[in-house]
Amino acid sequence: MIKNFVQYIELEEPRLGNNTADVERLKAALAKNIGTIEKGRGYPENERIQEKFYFPTTLAADIPLKLRQWNHKAKVVLFKDSMGWRVVDVLAPERDNPVFGVAVDLGTTRIVLRLINLETLASCGEIGFDNPQAKIAPDVLARIHHARTEDGLKELQQLVISDMNQHIHELCKNYLFSNHIDDSESLLIAHSIHLLTVAGNSAMTHLFLGIDPSFLIREPYIPAVNVPEPLDARELGIEINQRGMVYLFPNIGSYFGGDLISGILFAQLHKKDSPCIMVDVGTNAEVIVGYRDWLIACAGAAGPALEGGISNMGMTAKPGVIDRIKIDPVTGVVDVHTIDDKPPIGICGSGMIDLAAELFISGMLDIRGKFVPERCKDRYFEKDGVGSFRVAGGIVLSQVEMNSLTSSKAAMYSILQVIIEKTAGLQFDDLAKFYVAGTFGSFINPKSAISIGMLPDIPIDKFEVLGNSSLEGAAKLLINPDAFDEIEQIRQSITYIELNVNQEFMNIFSGAKFYPHTDISRFPSVKSLSL
Amino acid sequence: MIKNFVQYIELEEPRLGNNTADVERLKAALAKNIGTIEKGRGYPENERIQEKFYFPTTLAADIPLKLRQWNHKAKVVLFKDSMGWRVVDVLAPERDNPVFGVAVDLGTTRIVLRLINLETLASCGEIGFDNPQAKIAPDVLARIHHARTEDGLKELQQLVISDMNQHIHELCKNYLFSNHIDDSESLLIAHSIHLLTVAGNSAMTHLFLGIDPSFLIREPYIPAVNVPEPLDARELGIEINQRGMVYLFPNIGSYFGGDLISGILFAQLHKKDSPCIMVDVGTNAEVIVGYRDWLIACAGAAGPALEGGISNMGMTAKPGVIDRIKIDPVTGVVDVHTIDDKPPIGICGSGMIDLAAELFISGMLDIRGKFVPERCKDRYFEKDGVGSFRVAGGIVLSQVEMNSLTSSKAAMYSILQVIIEKTAGLQFDDLAKFYVAGTFGSFINPKSAISIGMLPDIPIDKFEVLGNSSLEGAAKLLINPDAFDEIEQIRQSITYIELNVNQEFMNIFSGAKFYPHTDISRFPSVKSLSL
Repeated sequence: MIKNFVQYIELEEPRLGNNTADVERLKAALAKNIGTIEKGRGYPENERIQEKFYFPTTLAADIPLKLRQWNHKAKVVLFKDSMGWRVVDVLAPERDNPVFGVAVDLGTTRIVLRLINLETLASCGEIGFDNPQAKIAPDVLARIHHARTEDGLKELQQLVISDMNQHIHELCKNYLFSNHIDDSESLLIAHSIHLLTVAGNSAMTHLFLGIDPSFLIREPYIPAVNVPEPLDARELGIEINQRGMVYLFPNIGSYFGGDLISGILFAQLHKKDSPCIMVDVGTNAEVIVGYRDWLIACAGAAGPALEGGISNMGMTAKPGVIDRIKIDPVTGVVDVHTIDDKPPIGICGSGMIDLAAELFISGMLDIRGKFVPERCKDRYFEKDGVGSFRVAGGIVLSQVEMNSLTSSKAAMYSILQVIIEKTAGLQFDDLAKFYVAGTFGSFINPKSAISIGMLPDIPIDKFEVLGNSSLEGAAKLLINPDAFDEIEQIRQSITYIELNVNQEFMNIFSGAKFYPHTDISRFPSVKSLSL
Repeated sequence: MIKNFVQYIELEEPRLGNNTADVERLKAALAKNIGTIEKGRGYPENERIQEKFYFPTTLAADIPLKLRQWNHKAKVVLFKDSMGWRVVDVLAPERDNPVFGVAVDLGTTRIVLRLINLETLASCGEIGFDNPQAKIAPDVLARIHHARTEDGLKELQQLVISDMNQHIHELCKNYLFSNHIDDSESLLIAHSIHLLTVAGNSAMTHLFLGIDPSFLIREPYIPAVNVPEPLDARELGIEINQRGMVYLFPNIGSYFGGDLISGILFAQLHKKDSPCIMVDVGTNAEVIVGYRDWLIACAGAAGPALEGGISNMGMTAKPGVIDRIKIDPVTGVVDVHTIDDKPPIGICGSGMIDLAAELFISGMLDIRGKFVPERCKDRYFEKDGVGSFRVAGGIVLSQVEMNSLTSSKAAMYSILQVIIEKTAGLQFDDLAKFYVAGTFGSFINPKSAISIGMLPDIPIDKFEVLGNSSLEGAAKLLINPDAFDEIEQIRQSITYIELNVNQEFMNIFSGAKFYPHTDISRFPSVKSLSL
């Protein structure tokens, strides 16, 4: 096993008794570095396999002279594909030609890049930008439709790649600036980037690779490819080292993408001793439950019950957006916190959940999720027969928006209940950890989410926020080559369940539309709070 | 095991219960076609390995729509690299889009192409042309030196590739013409060529790939690469299908190239039940002896003894060149045969050997290889003290040329003696077959070669002329994918011996300079012939 994609090797010197060719001596030196590997489960025990290396023929062109100039030493950049190790580049054995990688979270809304030194494994900066495809089509569905128009796919692909190139350049400039290196060399650093690991959902992955995504959204929801082989950065037009390679995290299905595999890798769900759950609330609600023995993933184009559902709660977090709310149950005073303490301009998802929880606990919201006018007092008003609640400044929440939140929280809980109880045959209490992934999850207050019956009523300390787990997983692969095998292990051990919106689901969903739930015994901690 | 690089597959249709991605279903269908393989020696017995397939990501771009248009059937072009199978292209399942391959003998002097239909396995034409690198430098050594000048390597590579493109086009045109298909479509046929298998010596292989060949000719004689991975035709600028691949036969060492591996493959030396020998007389004399248990190869930049040696005998075969000679030992009448029965313009190698044999048998040449003036009669004359023999018309053979032939034949026999007796520990009589490869070998009369002591005195019926074994081996690979594993088996079972021109060799060489040999007991059949 190797700890690093960058290997220092020392070749046996050629002599009359050892006239093996240069490339083959280089491979032998690599094999010596890496040694034999012991395969895990699925293989006969104790079987040891000699690693093989793919050495692209074009890379051999100037190898003879270089190796002799370098006194038969070299720094080799490695990567892996489904067949095994691949030599990406052969560099001078010095330390002053750094080798970088970039981890990419290829989000539908936002794309984040992190520069990583592949030798020191240090993070060297991060940069984020809005996915430029949104200019053409805001959501995944619309982008897939656009991809079917003439040159639409190419256009969507080029938008992302062009912006990515620009921001890779920016990332390099920032790195150079913060390290007091002359700015003009930033292209040189881009040239030092040899690997890109990209985690995105299935649709984003297809669009990024320029692969027809049409059938992702048509029954029976078939991706073109689940495990794309790494490809040359050049082939994609990505401006890093000309021999650089790009890896895309594999999908499980149309609605279970590489971003989640990356998240599982980061959370190390596949190595836990007892069942845990990971919930990623993005465009869809994706849930993975399991541990080292099995993993069940549940996601899907869930029907009307979830439409416009969980992800649509509130606005995107930015300065002035209300992200935390407190209501004094006695005085009814509403205390809001806005991002950067700017005057309020709207409410984001976590603010919405806080608000609903506080309204419910202070009796301003009934168990059906309807405003109680006499408790809301002067904060309540009606317009065209629709009740509304004045939050702060001019920010108002209507009953329609509250109903939507109610649907969303019910959908979330129903999905969790189906996967934990019906599918995995567990109780919520059996869960050792509850990981919340995705940017939305980062801001959520689990206590509020429990209060409204969105998340199950388990001890607060079991909740753990993962942050941008998609990016973290992509970064983990760059600093830990073993992760290749982990990804394959995760992929193979996942049972993927399409969420069926059937009668049983609808019954569960109906019960979950109450605050916190029709079956109040499911929420003992909330029961004790409410009046 | 598969019989064909073109596989017809039928994919499982996607449905809700089977929502595997398209590419993965395609791979599964291929695996079903090919099944598991049983590994040969070197692997634990009875171990069965599931074949894996590398599917280039760029190939996935339009797969979803195509597969549905083709009703989930397809024709897949496969190839192999050191890691395993590789999908080259996915085509419509119809029969009217033929898939071709081209086998290439990449000779130092001449290049020959053969068009092969990869589905019917039929040969569809052949074309040959002089290696255009000869314009720049006649021999391998000079070309390697030229490759070290600025842009010299690129120039040499481009010369061959440009001429190859032109002749591939020609080959396609000829095929269309002979099949009465409209000429304008010849580009379409070139587009149907998906595979190129190329067998050349180590230097030609390096130059073809644009790989620095400098160290092939410098002690300790190290190739840059022995087993080049197949590469994209596009990368080399070869104008066949844009997804086409080019395979180069592997080298064993600087002086033992892919042309010989190809020859061994064609002769099936590695499968023989008892020891056989294969001799390729080209720029160097290359000899392989062995059978299914072992193979010993002997080649080399043999020192002064062989310089300008065997290959320099006579001129290249062309119309008017004397290729067969008979001398009536009683009347002394010289009966010459010229190619195409044209007036004589010179003598080729086989003619030289015939001449020497006939001269010796009729007593016109003594055992030291010197003309016997009183036997040569009026055909003998001297100029500036050097004797000469008038062959036919104005064609004359001088004692200097005869001495050179003597050296060559002695070198050949010495090499054979060293490898058979000293290295393999066999007697010539132990050989079941004596294969003569290379164009030079094609015309040789073994009886004459035995008479002058160039080839060992074994029964004539053991000699077998292989013709252009390099081309035949390259063609064999195209029509028999199993040959991949055979090539690897050949490569691994060869012990490569550099011919050392030491005192012992020089002693053997001195003895072999006599006609037929100082040790006349080695040539009982010749003994009985000579007076």
